[in-house]
Amino acid sequence: MTAENQTKKLSIIAFSGDFDKLTAAFTLATGAAATGYEVNLFFTFWGLDAIKIKQGRSPVGKGFLSKVFGIMMGGLKSSPVSRLNFFGASPKIFRYLMKKNNVATLEELVEAAKQLEINFYACEMAMHVLGLQKSDFIPEIKAVLGVASFLKLSEGGQTLFI
Amino acid sequence: MTAENQTKKLSIIAFSGDFDKLTAAFTLATGAAATGYEVNLFFTFWGLDAIKIKQGRSPVGKGFLSKVFGIMMGGLKSSPVSRLNFFGASPKIFRYLMKKNNVATLEELVEAAKQLEINFYACEMAMHVLGLQKSDFIPEIKAVLGVASFLKLSEGGQTLFI
Amino acid sequence: MTAENQTKKLSIIAFSGDFDKLTAAFTLATGAAATGYEVNLFFTFWGLDAIKIKQGRSPVGKGFLSKVFGIMMGGLKSSPVSRLNFFGASPKIFRYLMKKNNVATLEELVEAAKQLEINFYACEMAMHVLGLQKSDFIPEIKAVLGVASFLKLSEGGQTLFI
Repeated sequence: MTAENQTKKLSIIAFSGDFDKLTAAFTLATGAAATGYEVNLFFTFWGLDAIKIKQGRSPVGKGFLSKVFGIMMGGLKSSPVSRLNFFGASPKIFRYLMKKNNVATLEELVEAAKQLEINFYACEMAMHVLGLQKSDFIPEIKAVLGVASFLKLSEGGQTLFI
Repeated sequence: MTAENQTKKLSIIAFSGDFDKLTAAFTLATGAAATGYEVNLFFTFWGLDAIKIKQGRSPVGKGFLSKVFGIMMGGLKSSPVSRLNFFGASPKIFRYLMKKNNVATLEELVEAAKQLEINFYACEMAMHVLGLQKSDFIPEIKAVLGVASFLKLSEGGQTLFI
Repeated sequence: MTAENQTKKLSIIAFSGDFDKLTAAFTLATGAAATGYEVNLFFTFWGLDAIKIKQGRSPVGKGFLSKVFGIMMGGLKSSPVSRLNFFGASPKIFRYLMKKNNVATLEELVEAAKQLEINFYACEMAMHVLGLQKSDFIPEIKAVLGVASFLKLSEGGQTLFI
């Protein structure tokens, strides 16, 4: 067994809900999975946007303040770009450029991630803070995990915080 | 000795001073330490906020411009949230939600980190830039380190930049 | 061969174009290289700013929208600071403090990175999205890579997303 044949693993803590950072997370995840890596995606805080069922600014979760956060978080289609936003223009320009240049869009990358059997996990703590339930997420979520469990899963591989 | 029994190590470069990112850093750190990891926290740039003694917007450090930066940096209680700030409202909402949902607040996480004997280090270079001294920080800071020393400490484990 | 003598490797995905984050990336990279690490820098999205030849807000790339992005991206000298910008004042204050306190400025760090033979790579996907060519970059770029190739290069070391 050479090092090449050993388990290759990439784990990503998807913290940001920004369009460009989510795109980077899914590009890395799918690129790795396509070349034989075991890939774990752990969605936390704003990153939970990416796996919410209800897209658009509909209130999910319970409790007034959680609802306020839910509305502010929006969803995949309303993810801001971290650096430039201009009242929502930049994500549209990004999508346009990605389409035009034959690069996978974020929705396509999410779809590819499902097909490539990338492991999706949701962060228990962030769900508590934001008042979200497992039922608020897409069914591909394999489990709701705490930090310790996720770190254990990601041992022996490369781990990124995005 | 199985892989499970070998040293488990998590090292975090705490660069951001944003409330949500600091919360993520301390949640990961304490979660790891609580399950037997050796944890190294290396505070640099805005992350140095988290370990400053004088909380509130009091000028620390020497030199006028360093003071301006010190005032802008504020401290733990005035950390902005990376994505949403609304004139300081979001950190308060966050704290409220954390309290309400029985999740540890940032101050509690910092306290837990001390109890769990997580290693706190301050970045020498950033301290020079910002005009900060070791005496500006909480006494739990184990050492002031350069990049090379920190990388050496973090070898063989997982390292995150937050 | 002890663990100390084995290959020490640091790989950085330089995603951000913010002045402070680029400074952190180059500080880590040069600090590691100076102590014997193999260092790989993979520039993607806004991070591509750091390796563009034409500094200043001149339009590079082809296509109108790509040009708009090019102008918005600017270049190394116009990189905003992630947390505080104030119409471009903060990078200048940062530079001033770095000079005054005898800390290497970003340009000096980039120069040092070249001298230390740090490996510079550009992200193929981001170049497609932003309409950039290899000829838009400094000649030190070793190769244009996809995600899978970069991950393979960074295996067995520490990898950071900045």
